[in-house]
Amino acid sequence: MTRGPQKQFDTEVALTKAMEVFWAHGYEATSLSELMKNMRIGKKSLYDTFGNKKSLFIKALEHYSQTTVSQMRDRLFSEGSAWENLKQLILEWQETHSQPGSCGCMLGTNIADFTTEHEEIAKLLRSYLQKVEDLFCTALTQARESGEIGSSVEPRDLARFLVCTTQGVALVGRVMKDELTLKGAISTALKLLDNS
Amino acid sequence: MTRGPQKQFDTEVALTKAMEVFWAHGYEATSLSELMKNMRIGKKSLYDTFGNKKSLFIKALEHYSQTTVSQMRDRLFSEGSAWENLKQLILEWQETHSQPGSCGCMLGTNIADFTTEHEEIAKLLRSYLQKVEDLFCTALTQARESGEIGSSVEPRDLARFLVCTTQGVALVGRVMKDELTLKGAISTALKLLDNS
Repeated sequence: MTRGPQKQFDTEVALTKAMEVFWAHGYEATSLSELMKNMRIGKKSLYDTFGNKKSLFIKALEHYSQTTVSQMRDRLFSEGSAWENLKQLILEWQETHSQPGSCGCMLGTNIADFTTEHEEIAKLLRSYLQKVEDLFCTALTQARESGEIGSSVEPRDLARFLVCTTQGVALVGRVMKDELTLKGAISTALKLLDNS
Repeated sequence: MTRGPQKQFDTEVALTKAMEVFWAHGYEATSLSELMKNMRIGKKSLYDTFGNKKSLFIKALEHYSQTTVSQMRDRLFSEGSAWENLKQLILEWQETHSQPGSCGCMLGTNIADFTTEHEEIAKLLRSYLQKVEDLFCTALTQARESGEIGSSVEPRDLARFLVCTTQGVALVGRVMKDELTLKGAISTALKLLDNS
């Protein structure tokens, strides 16, 4: 059995770098040369492995989505109460997006950057939001069953509410200069859920 | 007294048209020729009255901000209960952003489009969010005084929460295909506030 020439770079490391560049600058403002510099690969390797800029961007979005959803699942369901884990996750989300220079959520930002006419990208963004909603819903169903939250609102609707509120927090965090808005928003959401 | 040559167009009408074009396509993707066509003015008139593309864009953002804030103030405080008016306003916001092809909130979308390094634009976006927060806060303070909502959370924090949730709803509405997510999010937010 013969083997083809070995790749001189780690695909996942390169993809993570590409993701970081797109995340910081957005699709339009990111140049190929900036991508190659950060990914530490040449033009031929980039095209051979990832295709053109658009298909690299889509792979970077998928990478962000898979990584985020998988980390979120681990955090919510590995040990302890899913409700306490969810609250902790949301508090950390608020802290992250309150930092000066916060880029927001990579997928959320691209919901604004791309028009819905780009169906391939819209589908990816929609599927990410759906996965996050499903994770929140499972955690909230457990919280309801254990009596940690009330039962006046269905877990599915609570999850939809949390998806929109956390996306709003990540977006607003991009321009606010202090953490008052985000802190007020998240502490209120959690307090209202605790009393639900 | 002599008069200069009369303008052949209505500045506000032209600015509203520019706002619509920027809102639909974003700053980068909007061309000068598209602006001139929609504003029904020539290049010289555009430059003489509004400056270059960037300064026209800033004027369009200001126009959106002033119009939205003023309409919002009228709706909240002209007659009837401020809390009922606020709920109605938020329900309409959800309906608007659930429409297929919804562009989201013009200012919210630009929070994602521009990096915070563009301080002139960031300042304008921040000031818009602050004005909306202040209006919500006044309405929520009245609602608290009249006993329509509880007093477990400060009106200022409730207002911050509503700013983030409504911005999230407008953003998420850009990619969702049905209104389930937005409807679930908003009905939950209002129910939680009603029980607060």
